[in-house]
Amino acid sequence: MEIATYLNDQRQRVEDQLAALMLKPAGDFSQHIESMRYSLFVGGKRIRPILCLAGAEAVDSGEATRQRALSVACALECIHTYSLIHDDLPAMDDDDLRRGKPTNHTVFGEAAAILAGDGLLTFAFDLLSSQASADINDAARIRIIQTIARAAGPLGMVGGQSLDMIYEGQQVGYEMLRTIHRSKTGALITASVLSGAMVAGASAEQETALKTYGDNIGLAFQIVDDLLDVEATTEQLGKPAGSDLKSDKVTYPSLFGKETSRTMAREAVQEAIAALAAFDHQADPLRNLANFIVDRKK
Amino acid sequence: MEIATYLNDQRQRVEDQLAALMLKPAGDFSQHIESMRYSLFVGGKRIRPILCLAGAEAVDSGEATRQRALSVACALECIHTYSLIHDDLPAMDDDDLRRGKPTNHTVFGEAAAILAGDGLLTFAFDLLSSQASADINDAARIRIIQTIARAAGPLGMVGGQSLDMIYEGQQVGYEMLRTIHRSKTGALITASVLSGAMVAGASAEQETALKTYGDNIGLAFQIVDDLLDVEATTEQLGKPAGSDLKSDKVTYPSLFGKETSRTMAREAVQEAIAALAAFDHQADPLRNLANFIVDRKK
Repeated sequence: MEIATYLNDQRQRVEDQLAALMLKPAGDFSQHIESMRYSLFVGGKRIRPILCLAGAEAVDSGEATRQRALSVACALECIHTYSLIHDDLPAMDDDDLRRGKPTNHTVFGEAAAILAGDGLLTFAFDLLSSQASADINDAARIRIIQTIARAAGPLGMVGGQSLDMIYEGQQVGYEMLRTIHRSKTGALITASVLSGAMVAGASAEQETALKTYGDNIGLAFQIVDDLLDVEATTEQLGKPAGSDLKSDKVTYPSLFGKETSRTMAREAVQEAIAALAAFDHQADPLRNLANFIVDRKK
Repeated sequence: MEIATYLNDQRQRVEDQLAALMLKPAGDFSQHIESMRYSLFVGGKRIRPILCLAGAEAVDSGEATRQRALSVACALECIHTYSLIHDDLPAMDDDDLRRGKPTNHTVFGEAAAILAGDGLLTFAFDLLSSQASADINDAARIRIIQTIARAAGPLGMVGGQSLDMIYEGQQVGYEMLRTIHRSKTGALITASVLSGAMVAGASAEQETALKTYGDNIGLAFQIVDDLLDVEATTEQLGKPAGSDLKSDKVTYPSLFGKETSRTMAREAVQEAIAALAAFDHQADPLRNLANFIVDRKK
């Protein structure tokens, strides 16, 4: 299947399920719910939930498993969206534009944006423990919650954003650059693939292979992000291009040059695909996603 | 047992377990971990974790259950602490003082404080799904996670804070005042008692009774909070007294006067205790806690 078609189909499944599961603006909490929905439904590639679905499919492509993975996929997108809302805040990166639209705090104000993020993060764990995911067995659910909480928490995504703030404007070395990327972006990407695999009842060996896959596409994803910031236009990105250069940020292209960075991204994708050697054609979506990540234009 | 002794003992158990379970400042994430620890260990009454322990004890006072409830108690305190950090932010209540100490953002800066809150919230769900709480059976853990996530989320605590921001400085009616309190403070208090009871394997009837208990002490707690703001000194409170009056906030005393407010608090406590009729002496800590909440001086 064409990767574009696959991505469109899966994105649609995620959008539909998000629409079904997300709180509706009614009653006393309407304004708060609107602010969460604004950022959740403003668009985006839905890469993390799609990785979750593809991770499940690689282990078991049966329809029941595909359905079961959807609530986990939605929880991951809630967490990703919360992180974008908080990253964009005036006290953090102070960005006005995200996905081509005004950021949450420019529309709803700073207090509401902080709470929209808090609400989405908490709602993600609600989804993972509610009726929405009741058809995943309890032991797997606990492991999925643990995997996602660990990846999103102080030693993962939040910790990575904290490092990003601490070292802002400083010339960090490659070691720290890797640590920041691994925690800020890589951890949740790996958790997305793994949590999908857990829904499908992956073996320990399968989980290890998928962790290697996730870590490598996470790395490739970040390198390509850095490259796009140099090479793409603001219109293509839906956010200001060239912002890394302007803020004198250490990136892969600034450390290694564009050509070497692109080679590093390609090698990471090859390692990711190599890690899938024991999987049959059911892992083709994961293989295609790896190639998509390095070839994408935005 | 004297309630003061009981509270001291239980608080010590919570402090010890928090110290054991909380991340230690080491490695790349030290600064982030320090910022979380600052607010988590700055003091406080630890009412929510103690309610969780007392809720468990009411159902089963065996040592194993008492131990099992500790990780849940710690998760609740992480969530409560995160909510205080975010509430104090410049974009929210803009408070400089909390528990007699500088607030998180005045010490670590706004970005770090937002992330300290995010980290504590996420870490709470880590605790509930990690080895720390592995001796609670999986089905109960899922229900506990659901109960806490629902209470802390968009229709609970976060939603309540959102309403509090939206109606700031406006003369809301009693209905809205109740809705704000129920969601902002009441929901997590009830969830604290209930999640402890779930650790202990409470029956449906016991859970219903404990929900009534929790809802009523939550109400009493809020009324007394409002009364203390009028009656106590800044030194006693560890935060500016009289701040509700200054901000022209609608409170129980402003709506009903001090005497009626105190009567309402007492009645709520009586209802809370009445709900415990089917429990034996094991629920005495809950009974004493209810009286403590209405009699407290800070």
